[in-house]
Amino acid sequence: MKLVQAQDLEAIAIGSAIYGTGGGGDPYIGKLLAQQTMRQHGPVRLIDVDDIGDDDLVIPVAMAGAPTVLLEKLADVEPLITALRRLERELGRPATAVMSAEVGGLNSTIPFSVASATGLPLVDADTMGRAFPEIQMTLATLAGVPASPLAMADEKGNSLLITALSNAWTERFVRSALTEMGASSYMALLAMNGAQLRRATVRGSITQAWRAGQAWLDARAAHRDAISEVRRVTGGFHLFTGKVVDVQRVLAGGFCRGQAVLAGLDAHDGQRAVLHFQNEFLLAESRGQCLCATPDLIVMLDLDTGEPITAEQARYGLRVAVLGVPCVAAWRSAEALDLVGPQRFGYPQAYVPLEQLTQDR
Amino acid sequence: MKLVQAQDLEAIAIGSAIYGTGGGGDPYIGKLLAQQTMRQHGPVRLIDVDDIGDDDLVIPVAMAGAPTVLLEKLADVEPLITALRRLERELGRPATAVMSAEVGGLNSTIPFSVASATGLPLVDADTMGRAFPEIQMTLATLAGVPASPLAMADEKGNSLLITALSNAWTERFVRSALTEMGASSYMALLAMNGAQLRRATVRGSITQAWRAGQAWLDARAAHRDAISEVRRVTGGFHLFTGKVVDVQRVLAGGFCRGQAVLAGLDAHDGQRAVLHFQNEFLLAESRGQCLCATPDLIVMLDLDTGEPITAEQARYGLRVAVLGVPCVAAWRSAEALDLVGPQRFGYPQAYVPLEQLTQDR
Repeated sequence: MKLVQAQDLEAIAIGSAIYGTGGGGDPYIGKLLAQQTMRQHGPVRLIDVDDIGDDDLVIPVAMAGAPTVLLEKLADVEPLITALRRLERELGRPATAVMSAEVGGLNSTIPFSVASATGLPLVDADTMGRAFPEIQMTLATLAGVPASPLAMADEKGNSLLITALSNAWTERFVRSALTEMGASSYMALLAMNGAQLRRATVRGSITQAWRAGQAWLDARAAHRDAISEVRRVTGGFHLFTGKVVDVQRVLAGGFCRGQAVLAGLDAHDGQRAVLHFQNEFLLAESRGQCLCATPDLIVMLDLDTGEPITAEQARYGLRVAVLGVPCVAAWRSAEALDLVGPQRFGYPQAYVPLEQLTQDR
Repeated sequence: MKLVQAQDLEAIAIGSAIYGTGGGGDPYIGKLLAQQTMRQHGPVRLIDVDDIGDDDLVIPVAMAGAPTVLLEKLADVEPLITALRRLERELGRPATAVMSAEVGGLNSTIPFSVASATGLPLVDADTMGRAFPEIQMTLATLAGVPASPLAMADEKGNSLLITALSNAWTERFVRSALTEMGASSYMALLAMNGAQLRRATVRGSITQAWRAGQAWLDARAAHRDAISEVRRVTGGFHLFTGKVVDVQRVLAGGFCRGQAVLAGLDAHDGQRAVLHFQNEFLLAESRGQCLCATPDLIVMLDLDTGEPITAEQARYGLRVAVLGVPCVAAWRSAEALDLVGPQRFGYPQAYVPLEQLTQDR
């Protein structure tokens, strides 16, 4: 068990933005909210997956919606607690611990708010090892753990409880209700016992994000190159350096979809790269070649400051480095690629592991 | 208390189609389902509003969706019972009785299936005294009775529990989920105690539909004019006689919207009338004059057989009589007209009571 203090959220937020692969909502908002709650209610106990008994109940909490909208609406802990309590009531028992559904942006920092406000520990794990835009896109789906019953609340006071046939059906109902809720909402979902937890999650992913964020902070403090440090600590590859020259972004179906075009700098002078996103960056290509594809992670960092840039923050003139980071091994099975591979998002490319793409170039 | 037998559904279905004012779903399907259930599980006890104690719990059950789709999908009693049980569980107590949310088409006959299958009595009342397309369009809304918590189920096994700030918010969440459920679903909603029941319903409306349907059946059996008989028993007015020459119908947002154009026959030779509908007929006009407007009822009857015609059954060549029937007095307050008047549906006309429109012609 580690005790996480408010100031630790600085590193965790940076690391979450890196693993958020351009999505997951603005980590800055989530960090502020978590720090505010933790200053009021105290630190959070971060516990290991093995600290959870087979019959204990873990309930992940998350915000859903287009990051663009999450940026505009202030995140709030109260509707998350409403959703958590609603789901506990449905299940007829209280949660032993809460968890992040995804390690990425907002959704890995706001569970700290809920943990602090309720006094529940937070499990050091998540169901993706990164961020993904749809509810069925979790290792939980592959492990047969249902996302529903799912409790959903908005900041106005509306709430829904969804019980669906499959995690894909849950996603459909969440997405349609989300539109009515103004493209953002608060959820408790993917309730699981300890036995399921051990099958359905990436262990230690919060600690890993924390470590990456801390390395980034240390590099910045020592005036070392933060981008190299991120590459080292994530086991990532440098894919492209360039200037953002065009961004197309549309808010559709509760998602922020689009693409960012980069004009190469330095070693990539004269080249172009395109980054496609649906909330998260999903595909990077240059000169007709795939540089990196989902489920591997695409990380955009500000070339000057090293700060992670989300898809909705990308804007004309920004000079960036693009890294590729290998996903966890569980995402590379044929079944997993059916769920989160590039073709699942409508891109024609078949998935090739990042390490192989890098070797081939 | 009256005991309703399977064969009584013949008259109740006809009466419901009349009061359904062109919507509420095909009464034939609802009748078949109710009769089948009643032959298996026995007759239904139809009880008076005053038979319900102040603290008893009445739960209306209904199907939601575009009538065009309800026609194509076979109605089923099981998902309705699922929705009922789900709502009972949420409220923590069993229902004393079930009820029709609207007297109209499918939705006044299928509650008989639920009553028969569960052994619960059916209250002789509804929350509209007709059919309306949206959930907040009930006397319950005017009486401050919430439509939620609302349980919603589909025939596949998905279910939702909606708890909303207002009946208009409930409608929004139902409508968006409905689209995912294939434009039809099964609901338990508007749970109320006896005290609320006495404020929020039209008493005796099932008996009134039964009486109208029986008068229609008797007239047909005696080779008398069924249309005149409907006019007499409903207190209605003859508005127009004509042939359907054009129907525009679009399935949008879970509704069947459009208009039917009639070319006049007999006394209306050379004239035209237009009937606008959103599931239900909402506005009838001819020569720039309003003939009848919501919340008054517009009833289309086959000129040859006297059979009630729903908006989705209207087709080229059909020769019809159009009647107007005054709505219950509670719908004529300023507050009620804000909720269900013609301008609420986007028509420019202000509401004028049917009796006055008829006098002015």
